[in-house]
Amino acid sequence: MTQTTFQHITVAFDFPVVFTRRAFDPGNPALAGILGRAGAGPHRLGVVVDGGLAAADPGLPSRLEAYVAAHADRAVLAAPPVVVAGGERAKADFAVLEAVWKLTVEAGLCRQSFIVAIGGGAVLDAVGFAAATAHRGVRLVRMPSTALAQNDAGVGVKNSINAFGRKNYLGTFAPPYAVLNDQALLETLPPREARAGLAEAVKVALVRDAAFFSWLKENAPRLAALEPEVLDEANRRCAVAHLQHIAGGGDPFELGSARPLDFGHWAAHALEEATGGELRHGEAVAVGVALDTVYSRMIGLIGPAEAEAVLRLLVDIGLDVWHPALAALDMAASVGAFREHLGGRLHLSMLTGLGSRIEVHEVDFARMAAARDEIRARASVSGSRREG
Amino acid sequence: MTQTTFQHITVAFDFPVVFTRRAFDPGNPALAGILGRAGAGPHRLGVVVDGGLAAADPGLPSRLEAYVAAHADRAVLAAPPVVVAGGERAKADFAVLEAVWKLTVEAGLCRQSFIVAIGGGAVLDAVGFAAATAHRGVRLVRMPSTALAQNDAGVGVKNSINAFGRKNYLGTFAPPYAVLNDQALLETLPPREARAGLAEAVKVALVRDAAFFSWLKENAPRLAALEPEVLDEANRRCAVAHLQHIAGGGDPFELGSARPLDFGHWAAHALEEATGGELRHGEAVAVGVALDTVYSRMIGLIGPAEAEAVLRLLVDIGLDVWHPALAALDMAASVGAFREHLGGRLHLSMLTGLGSRIEVHEVDFARMAAARDEIRARASVSGSRREG
Repeated sequence: MTQTTFQHITVAFDFPVVFTRRAFDPGNPALAGILGRAGAGPHRLGVVVDGGLAAADPGLPSRLEAYVAAHADRAVLAAPPVVVAGGERAKADFAVLEAVWKLTVEAGLCRQSFIVAIGGGAVLDAVGFAAATAHRGVRLVRMPSTALAQNDAGVGVKNSINAFGRKNYLGTFAPPYAVLNDQALLETLPPREARAGLAEAVKVALVRDAAFFSWLKENAPRLAALEPEVLDEANRRCAVAHLQHIAGGGDPFELGSARPLDFGHWAAHALEEATGGELRHGEAVAVGVALDTVYSRMIGLIGPAEAEAVLRLLVDIGLDVWHPALAALDMAASVGAFREHLGGRLHLSMLTGLGSRIEVHEVDFARMAAARDEIRARASVSGSRREG
Repeated sequence: MTQTTFQHITVAFDFPVVFTRRAFDPGNPALAGILGRAGAGPHRLGVVVDGGLAAADPGLPSRLEAYVAAHADRAVLAAPPVVVAGGERAKADFAVLEAVWKLTVEAGLCRQSFIVAIGGGAVLDAVGFAAATAHRGVRLVRMPSTALAQNDAGVGVKNSINAFGRKNYLGTFAPPYAVLNDQALLETLPPREARAGLAEAVKVALVRDAAFFSWLKENAPRLAALEPEVLDEANRRCAVAHLQHIAGGGDPFELGSARPLDFGHWAAHALEEATGGELRHGEAVAVGVALDTVYSRMIGLIGPAEAEAVLRLLVDIGLDVWHPALAALDMAASVGAFREHLGGRLHLSMLTGLGSRIEVHEVDFARMAAARDEIRARASVSGSRREG
């Protein structure tokens, strides 16, 4: 009576991730080249710009318009650039989704058209969700404008908004058509943001790239000074390490539960929530990485010298390894929330070396509390030292 | 200055499509087997039922509850079944999405949990969109309850709702975890719906399966009489042909523009809109298939005998090849709307035989009007004959 057919589908996604400077100089071929991958054109573009970026760099929309005008054989603006709320507000409700959906309707953007999203990770996430769902997917070119976005939201295959009081509750898996990193955009960032972005570089080095960790150590003083050349290199290597992980991890759409790139992130998510976003994502990741590094040592996975090297690197590049909100955190509840987001089973990465990791499926909360106390004590010592 | 990394990602999806009868008889192993593919369990289930089906078969939710109770080692209901609006109302706004999202929040469904969606194509589309976006994807088991849904929404990799006045404007590509076709569910359908579902069988036979077309011809009288055994077989073969097309077509997520399974659908979509849904999708497809078949003959792709065989089959199984709304249709505008939905370039399938097709990229509207006039004339003759 019962007959079963097994359906097997394979979908391949190929997209370029370009690192350049001054993408909208009319002579820069990067964006025109990206569009040209879809045929000669002219292709219809809708453009969405992060309000924070537009405020910091008010000339950006007109530079983009001039660029498109200079490449009129390749591209045409289907509507004037749309500016949306920047930062976490972009993901707080459906407002950005609705703005982008309306743009696609009013400008007649179809599945072969392009949306160019320029902004921080939150804007890329929200615009990406909208672009992935209008017509079931309008081609998306991401232009991440922060270090964090270049490392994370820019290169990933996910998008989202917050909903029902939960971070990233709604979203899809949707690779972009291309990622265009304009490293000159990062120069508009406040130093605090540029520094916070380095936490993801430390994280990805720790879980998969010992050579990158050594490079970060060697260059810690120049990174702490936010020298553009080393910042560019750190960001580019960080992004490429993320790309390699996603492509090589065997589960880009996370059909399983493991997420090695989320090292240190259970505490980071909880700290971001607890501080109402006052702590930047990268700053929270620095604390989370410090915590899980010490925990990795406490459960015998790494030695004291390795743990010390991680904490020292974070401090040396100017990232705090402690935040008072961690003291008040219900760690069991935070891990529980993370587990629920992953699915039924807990998967946390812990370090087995500076560039390698394993998955653990439970947490010894007494040891985790001891790890917390240790980074607090360390911070209070280095705090007094700074003051002294 | 400019460096480019090419990201290559491959994602594989495997899912079973099961055909059975009386899936909720406690002894039927099909659903338990589907859940068991994810590990022993018990797995958390949320269930969403089409309001039309629940009205026609009020015992269904309690049969499902009894089934789950009988398989308590494998599954647990995380919340009572949720009944949502059936038919196109399911896709008319965000109501079904919000109901399903709330179910996932309140019942604590995660990416490793299951949503079982039971209903017609519109409900599967809307619930599928919600399931694909909560946590970026909760596992979805589709149980299509109409012939059309078993052939189309059930086996496909798409979901959607209508928005901004456009059919299927918002949605994603998201393969299900499994499809469970309970052919006994179809027995609750009015004869008109069962018959309409056969239009998709004719369509898919025409574009890719000559043997299936012959089988339909041979069995036309039994299909016209809606004999359960041949209906089951027609629906199963139709679904499998759709599955094979999606798997073998090389573009399951429609990153290109061609959509062979949309043969006859430009007119069908327009007719559904023009009649405000009074014409069933399958009925509209029958008219659209007839129109594009005659057009295929008029542009010299098939001969008169082949075109005649198609029209005769549709009529023999009880499907009208004409609807008065076609007379008033602005065909150029309808083709234009279809082109916009596909993307910049028009791709329409036209027949080169009974089981083969090519893509055309433009329409000769004078000939299309002649094709329309021919099926109108034919319908008026057969209409008078019926009356006579």
